[in-house]
Amino acid sequence: MSVERYSIGVDLGGTNLRIAAYREKSIADGEIVESIGLPTRVAAGSDAVADDMSKAILQLLGKFGGGENFAGLGVGTPGPLELPDGILRNPPNLPGFDGYNLSEAVASRVGMPVIVESDANLAALAEFRLGSGKTYAASSLCMLTLGTGVGNGIILDGKVWNGFSGMGGEAGHNTVDPEGEPCPCGSRGCLELYASATGVQRMAHALRAPSATDGEASPILSARHIAESASAGDPTSLRVFERVGTSLGIGLGALVNTLNLELYVIGGGMSAAWDLFAPRMMDELRMRSYVYRLNAPTEDESRTRALRKTHVVRAELGSDAGILGACLLPFVQG
Amino acid sequence: MSVERYSIGVDLGGTNLRIAAYREKSIADGEIVESIGLPTRVAAGSDAVADDMSKAILQLLGKFGGGENFAGLGVGTPGPLELPDGILRNPPNLPGFDGYNLSEAVASRVGMPVIVESDANLAALAEFRLGSGKTYAASSLCMLTLGTGVGNGIILDGKVWNGFSGMGGEAGHNTVDPEGEPCPCGSRGCLELYASATGVQRMAHALRAPSATDGEASPILSARHIAESASAGDPTSLRVFERVGTSLGIGLGALVNTLNLELYVIGGGMSAAWDLFAPRMMDELRMRSYVYRLNAPTEDESRTRALRKTHVVRAELGSDAGILGACLLPFVQG
Repeated sequence: MSVERYSIGVDLGGTNLRIAAYREKSIADGEIVESIGLPTRVAAGSDAVADDMSKAILQLLGKFGGGENFAGLGVGTPGPLELPDGILRNPPNLPGFDGYNLSEAVASRVGMPVIVESDANLAALAEFRLGSGKTYAASSLCMLTLGTGVGNGIILDGKVWNGFSGMGGEAGHNTVDPEGEPCPCGSRGCLELYASATGVQRMAHALRAPSATDGEASPILSARHIAESASAGDPTSLRVFERVGTSLGIGLGALVNTLNLELYVIGGGMSAAWDLFAPRMMDELRMRSYVYRLNAPTEDESRTRALRKTHVVRAELGSDAGILGACLLPFVQG
Repeated sequence: MSVERYSIGVDLGGTNLRIAAYREKSIADGEIVESIGLPTRVAAGSDAVADDMSKAILQLLGKFGGGENFAGLGVGTPGPLELPDGILRNPPNLPGFDGYNLSEAVASRVGMPVIVESDANLAALAEFRLGSGKTYAASSLCMLTLGTGVGNGIILDGKVWNGFSGMGGEAGHNTVDPEGEPCPCGSRGCLELYASATGVQRMAHALRAPSATDGEASPILSARHIAESASAGDPTSLRVFERVGTSLGIGLGALVNTLNLELYVIGGGMSAAWDLFAPRMMDELRMRSYVYRLNAPTEDESRTRALRKTHVVRAELGSDAGILGACLLPFVQG
């Protein structure tokens, strides 16, 4: 029998802050045993947020932190993040946090080392250990998280690939249309502009916008609403999701050609619209990547053989992926 | 004092076959001590080529292969290559070799294990150990080899990144223009179509082609000739190299965003035209990748600080990179 171990994880978002204690049952199994949810007091400043976070951590440490069965403390944050120092670099979702040493701030408050990692990397880690990575017995994985933006996390041989300065896995800003829309990142035609919920809203709005002579502006609809109207057969909404699929296929094609991994995972809120964009995405990927074609699974092969192919799948974990990844971090990179 | 060790490397090309013995002086220093050059008898078939290769290997083994100071045998080949089996998969530069188990064919002929690797990966390995990787004290590197095509090799934490089936590092077929020219790989707008010598020829020819009503077709010029005329100020040739630079900048932008490495290296025959494409390439990269901008070296920083930045440089090793990489392989992945 293996010994149960504990960890504490933090998911710092632009709106919500979540702190959880995790019990590991085995390397590929575990559960959140207690969780504290708070608003992220961005307006109160970075130190106030670190205070809130640390108070909750200390509370959980009191219950779960004792002894040699405690693996450590992991914190997930929106990027970009400079590693190994744990300094935030102009994070768009945490205004006022530029240059903040989150790792040091929390460590000094709770009196123990803190491992910091970007949230998209942690979602990938959780999916690797507890989700599709387990299902496909993968040793590596690349995940795209389709939300407000497009997050990206890469696991190579079981470890988060951070790059040399902590900024690996920013494929959401890879160009999929060189002459495309300008992106707040300073480039144009980034994958994020076509495969995020925000992108779906923008594209739908542009397609519905009345001509200059036509008067009345159309309202901005939510991505979920646009997905619903696509499912009901609305041609404009269907076109939007075709574009999502094409863009993801181009983006994935480059990731497959470059990395040649066994598993590419699509997660985040927008992945609920999988049926609307996946067929187009897979057609585009097949065209864009001969590496994919040489490694694509076929219908009739055995499970053993199928595991040695490239799979593109929908994430198995839902919105808990980020906090689960933070909890796993001390076991993996501790 | 460290002991000198030996290895044998093979560079199998579509036209030439080279077999060399290498003496390692240290992990980052060594030299080719003897080399045999032969034509690649593609028309005679794969077994004839394996025979030629093996005869030359045995000859060098007789002189350098004795004893415990011999590290092993590395073979570089045009891809795609299926690893760990060492099977060629439809290599465009070696017609008739599809499905050929090169590793087994050579091992059975020479009576020792053979490590097979794709040529672009080996060029990256040599550049990492003996070239710019040494200069920049890099732990990882991504190299693009601009020749007839655009080869790609990725070294992560000192090892060739092969991907799970040996096909990692095919970024030459990443899309840089979704609606661009069709590529023999089955996609369109691949980096290779705009950053290879063949691409330069095609683009220059297209720009110079007379209109349908104009009579006489223009001759197809060599990439070197087009580079010379660009250096002399010819506007059409300059435009071609602008396109080379733009395409490389888009391609590199995605590689920097995804991998966040310290070092990106441009090699191959076309890299001689560095001054013609590099300024445009760097401008495009700066625009395309905020990860690059956050990690770009500045003019006045110390060497220690500069080493912790992202560098994009011209390869230091010339056309020997492939054979040197094959010779290094037994020391690294043996």
